[in-house]
Amino acid sequence: MFKEKLNRLIQEKDSLLCIGLDCDIRKIPPFLLDEEDPLLIFNREIIEATADLAIAYKPNIAFYETLGSTGWQLLEKTLQYLPGDCLVIADAKRGDIGNSTNKYAELYFHTYSFDAITLSPYMGFDSIQPFLEYDDKASFILCLTSNAGSHDFQYLNIESEPLYLKIARKVSEWNLRHGNCGIVVGATHPENLSSIREVAPHLPFLIPGIGIQGGNLQLTVQYGTDEKGLGAIISISRSIIYASAEKDFAQAARDIALSYMNDINTIRKSK
Amino acid sequence: MFKEKLNRLIQEKDSLLCIGLDCDIRKIPPFLLDEEDPLLIFNREIIEATADLAIAYKPNIAFYETLGSTGWQLLEKTLQYLPGDCLVIADAKRGDIGNSTNKYAELYFHTYSFDAITLSPYMGFDSIQPFLEYDDKASFILCLTSNAGSHDFQYLNIESEPLYLKIARKVSEWNLRHGNCGIVVGATHPENLSSIREVAPHLPFLIPGIGIQGGNLQLTVQYGTDEKGLGAIISISRSIIYASAEKDFAQAARDIALSYMNDINTIRKSK
Repeated sequence: MFKEKLNRLIQEKDSLLCIGLDCDIRKIPPFLLDEEDPLLIFNREIIEATADLAIAYKPNIAFYETLGSTGWQLLEKTLQYLPGDCLVIADAKRGDIGNSTNKYAELYFHTYSFDAITLSPYMGFDSIQPFLEYDDKASFILCLTSNAGSHDFQYLNIESEPLYLKIARKVSEWNLRHGNCGIVVGATHPENLSSIREVAPHLPFLIPGIGIQGGNLQLTVQYGTDEKGLGAIISISRSIIYASAEKDFAQAARDIALSYMNDINTIRKSK
Repeated sequence: MFKEKLNRLIQEKDSLLCIGLDCDIRKIPPFLLDEEDPLLIFNREIIEATADLAIAYKPNIAFYETLGSTGWQLLEKTLQYLPGDCLVIADAKRGDIGNSTNKYAELYFHTYSFDAITLSPYMGFDSIQPFLEYDDKASFILCLTSNAGSHDFQYLNIESEPLYLKIARKVSEWNLRHGNCGIVVGATHPENLSSIREVAPHLPFLIPGIGIQGGNLQLTVQYGTDEKGLGAIISISRSIIYASAEKDFAQAARDIALSYMNDINTIRKSK
């Protein structure tokens, strides 16, 4: 089961860190552009330099999809470099119905063998259900996202509580079936994390928004983890993978990753 | 501008019909499986048989994405068969932020030259905004979807009106910038269409749910169109494209499409 594997990895690797593989040809070190497949080499070097620190890697599918068919090949090859002792999360934010959602579940969980995926809640249960049938995989539903636009709908008040809490409650219900749901909550809303944790004490949280987005690490770790200090995946992308644009980029990524990992652990262990 | 082109096409072709190109290897006529590229031949035949009846075609991206890199090639080749006098809508239901959403907008509007895309509203304005910058293209935001799961969140009550109406109002606001927004409303909720039309009198509606999903055609046309009987795209997929599994499949698709087109026009003109 995903949740057991997650918590085992957190303990074995003593880490909550997930690294977002948002590879962008305009941001990787320029010297790599002389190589035949610069993005693949970039991903491989980042993975090799951080494999012992990260419990998960999260390719954002948009970065691959927009490269057309070569992007999907890049994704496939990147997945082969990922170590066995980590989880692989497709940050796809999909949400469709009927045959379409069946096909998405098959693609990401069967064809590409991802351990987890991010999904949009708006279309409701039948857009999520085919993913839940894969009971060893996990579905992270968007709850309170890290961007400014989260204020447009997610905070709307329904019977004296915001929509994002309704979603956290609903996902907790869906989780009763196979125990394989989680939610996405942004580190940029630390003041709301504790109420979400109260409503969903047993769900794993996937938490982006630390680093360039400016999320609060102290409160994120304090409220994002469950009562055992587990059940949270803190995902950092750009501030790790683009730490340097020079030859030392992989070592620089490792240094920043290690620094985040240590900061997170210090907070986690003082909880 | 998209809306002007849509309304001109509706009048020129005397049609509100959009055909969903949800091609599925398990559903196309079996005799096509002997061909080198059965799905492409299927799409081409369907398009050629219906080109004078449809104002739009809507490939559901899930059906292509799940085929891996060959699926994207199939999509590219299919787009080349589409006639100039129709709109092409990417049913992608994307919704992401920052660089990811910029990249999606570039992919669908620039690389693939779609006229419009479907988007999920949950992440709010900054997940939509990069698409709106393409002012000759249109973004159809999910409002009230045709599936059973629409009841999970879309009907939640906020200050005495459902979430889907809040979204219709918000999209109307976003539309003030470039006049290039629309909404997706399912034909399976005909009793709610009129209130959505009241709130969003000027937005084009993309309306799936007729055919196999059982939507009500009479009320859909009556309330889905604007005060001039324009501004609505009625999208039908399976009940047209899979009308026959025999050699006559393209003619059968045309017959059903023509029948829907005539039924829609009868209702529209009696409005």
